[in-house]
Amino acid sequence: MTDAVLEELSAALGSAVSTDPRLLEPARADKSGHRSAGRPLAYVSAASVADVQHTLRIANAHRVPVVTRGAGTGLAGGAIAGPGEIVLSTLAMNRVLEINVDDELAVVEPGIINADLNAALLAHGLWFAPDPASRAISTVGGNIATNAGGLLCAKYGVTREAVLGLKVVTADGELLSLGHRTVKGVTGLDLTALMIGSEGTLGVIVEATLKLRPLPAGPVATLGASFESVEQAARASAVITASRLRPAIMELLDARALDAISAHVGVDLGGRGAHLLVQFDGAGAEADAASARAIAESLGGSVELARDAEEGERLFAIRRAFHPAMERLGTVLIEDVSVPRSQLPAMFAAITDIERRHDVVIATVAHAGDGNLHPNFLFQGEEVPDAVWAAADELFTTALRLGGTLTGEHGVGLLKRRWLQDELGTTQYELQRRIKQVFDPRGILNPGKVFA
Amino acid sequence: MTDAVLEELSAALGSAVSTDPRLLEPARADKSGHRSAGRPLAYVSAASVADVQHTLRIANAHRVPVVTRGAGTGLAGGAIAGPGEIVLSTLAMNRVLEINVDDELAVVEPGIINADLNAALLAHGLWFAPDPASRAISTVGGNIATNAGGLLCAKYGVTREAVLGLKVVTADGELLSLGHRTVKGVTGLDLTALMIGSEGTLGVIVEATLKLRPLPAGPVATLGASFESVEQAARASAVITASRLRPAIMELLDARALDAISAHVGVDLGGRGAHLLVQFDGAGAEADAASARAIAESLGGSVELARDAEEGERLFAIRRAFHPAMERLGTVLIEDVSVPRSQLPAMFAAITDIERRHDVVIATVAHAGDGNLHPNFLFQGEEVPDAVWAAADELFTTALRLGGTLTGEHGVGLLKRRWLQDELGTTQYELQRRIKQVFDPRGILNPGKVFA
Repeated sequence: MTDAVLEELSAALGSAVSTDPRLLEPARADKSGHRSAGRPLAYVSAASVADVQHTLRIANAHRVPVVTRGAGTGLAGGAIAGPGEIVLSTLAMNRVLEINVDDELAVVEPGIINADLNAALLAHGLWFAPDPASRAISTVGGNIATNAGGLLCAKYGVTREAVLGLKVVTADGELLSLGHRTVKGVTGLDLTALMIGSEGTLGVIVEATLKLRPLPAGPVATLGASFESVEQAARASAVITASRLRPAIMELLDARALDAISAHVGVDLGGRGAHLLVQFDGAGAEADAASARAIAESLGGSVELARDAEEGERLFAIRRAFHPAMERLGTVLIEDVSVPRSQLPAMFAAITDIERRHDVVIATVAHAGDGNLHPNFLFQGEEVPDAVWAAADELFTTALRLGGTLTGEHGVGLLKRRWLQDELGTTQYELQRRIKQVFDPRGILNPGKVFA
Repeated sequence: MTDAVLEELSAALGSAVSTDPRLLEPARADKSGHRSAGRPLAYVSAASVADVQHTLRIANAHRVPVVTRGAGTGLAGGAIAGPGEIVLSTLAMNRVLEINVDDELAVVEPGIINADLNAALLAHGLWFAPDPASRAISTVGGNIATNAGGLLCAKYGVTREAVLGLKVVTADGELLSLGHRTVKGVTGLDLTALMIGSEGTLGVIVEATLKLRPLPAGPVATLGASFESVEQAARASAVITASRLRPAIMELLDARALDAISAHVGVDLGGRGAHLLVQFDGAGAEADAASARAIAESLGGSVELARDAEEGERLFAIRRAFHPAMERLGTVLIEDVSVPRSQLPAMFAAITDIERRHDVVIATVAHAGDGNLHPNFLFQGEEVPDAVWAAADELFTTALRLGGTLTGEHGVGLLKRRWLQDELGTTQYELQRRIKQVFDPRGILNPGKVFA
């Protein structure tokens, strides 16, 4: 059967189909550290909607799994392909089809890199707000498939808030147009929203109509505040939110993160228990920064203030050095829990406790403005040690107990399948599976991901 | 069978069940002007989640339709109940269960009136942004069921952007908890978003976790600009958006609307071909208003500027007088199409043409900031004349042709069922029906609404 599938794919798609190990091997992994059991069946580099439709029709007829893949920067194993599976890459579908300045929207193919799109929008004074840390290397299609977040979400929203409509190819190769080109619209069920964050399990996104924003204008004001403890810093961030201030960015780094960065950049940040970075933009930026400074200082923070974007960038250099700093120290499992903002101090306290009891190393950065924490588990070697999984298990359970969620912005993929029912409950889990079956009756779309 | 259903309902729910015509008769109608064929079977006034569960278990067992209803202010016939149907009112479930100032969220029951919630939030400096014109009389549950919009959506979003999580009772009486208390979250499919705008066809909303915003602080600046023609005014609104300004409110009234208001308030607004109201809030309000003024004047507008909220309110009095003014003149069918903002001039031109060719009277107000138009068809008597339906049909077709949608914020209900497939296409329409069946295999949830 394998040969028949390859033959049909080749007949329909020609040189877009490949079994070259140089394409198949990388598709076994993503940035999660996971790797599939073996080489996938074939790699299809789709250049058009028709290519995607051909691939799905053939795959569906033969019940062959299809793993849709963009840049492969996912952190949850959602785009990993294994034996017997077709890798459907949409990376070559990377055109900007339209930039409509009057309607503040863009129509793009899914393979365009987030930063490339924003570079194209810059001249128009417009901006696609979803801003994952991976924006220089991740695709808009991947951002949509995982409902990606990033640093700016408390003020500017997540990907779901920035997508008006989608074109989607279904499991049996039909093309659907979902959503609207308008700001408002309530015609039937919101399938656009259902697709966002569905991680390749419902269909293949082949086009997106994106809601753009005017580029934030006016001043930018940035604070860097050092605290003796992470609990103090977390409290400061919670009070800043509760004071009705609305930072564009609010990032928190704990002592372990600061130690790693110190070693990497050769500047001693030691002795700082935690660091909070807060950036305001827009007309009220300076006044807001002054208020935030007063809050941080009243809670024991030592504050540095930058009054322009360039100086602010210098303060943010610490944050940007975090991931490179961690990678120098060993293998890293990047986690992604989210809690209500008021629970940040409790979550940080729990992480310290989990780290000690499981004898693991966890360096944590948080998008404190929206309660999203990235505890980074550090270990040596390729295999995730059992102690790390045990600690991660406790991390997830704690986040749920505090009213939070397993994953703020990375998705479920392979990594969090076994905890999904804990969060959703059995009834909702089964309902979600039945919805998946409506879209994909033969179970060919990214099987084994999200739903175990 | 009817008797058996009533007996079971009474046994389970006691005095919450009624067959009093004074309750049943009003449930035959809403604010759409439509009226069901006859009196419903029973009226259940749910006071708790358990009441809703009992009602649905009994209804599902006997395959009796359930029409969930809040304040009955809908404009599309979505909550109208007829013979053989149970009216499930959630109006008595109107408590605020929690206001969490630190996390900027509220947990409410569905029956709370939008304005009552905002009154309760005021003291905390917080705000539930969805702002339908009906906010003084419509429920939050109804706002969610129709993904309600309003005047502030271009800047502050629609209801979907203001809901974090929902508790929903399914057709068979199970209780689901959907979504999160956190700003971010990607665990499985986004069923919260799927419920929003589903008009009672997928389940009964019994609790909502709402995302609040800080009340806009700082100055408010308001412009009233008169133009000789509606096309000019529409162009001015499109240019204001395209200039990267972000008004909190931008409302447009055409000549027919101004005539009606003149007659009602006794002030001569005649001779003004159209009127545009633009309000900015926040730190940059005054500078933005000055920019908008320059744009309006350069396009032939005669501008009045109000520098504080009170004076602004005076300018908005014209807009607020519109619906009472229309009701004095006859029966009104309020329509609700949405187009990309750049298409507003074309849509207004088309309305003028449709009015003339079908010999009907259409007064139009538009939320110009987001491209949402409310053409109000005026006629005499109770029955909608054929000419009005023919004109409405052409209105919908034109909106779709201009890249727009049948309904920006009122929903499909009964009124727009026959055009739904034109917008969705057959494949998507059938997919949506199959999703409905997953939630409601026996078809008891608001049957005949949305899906014909």
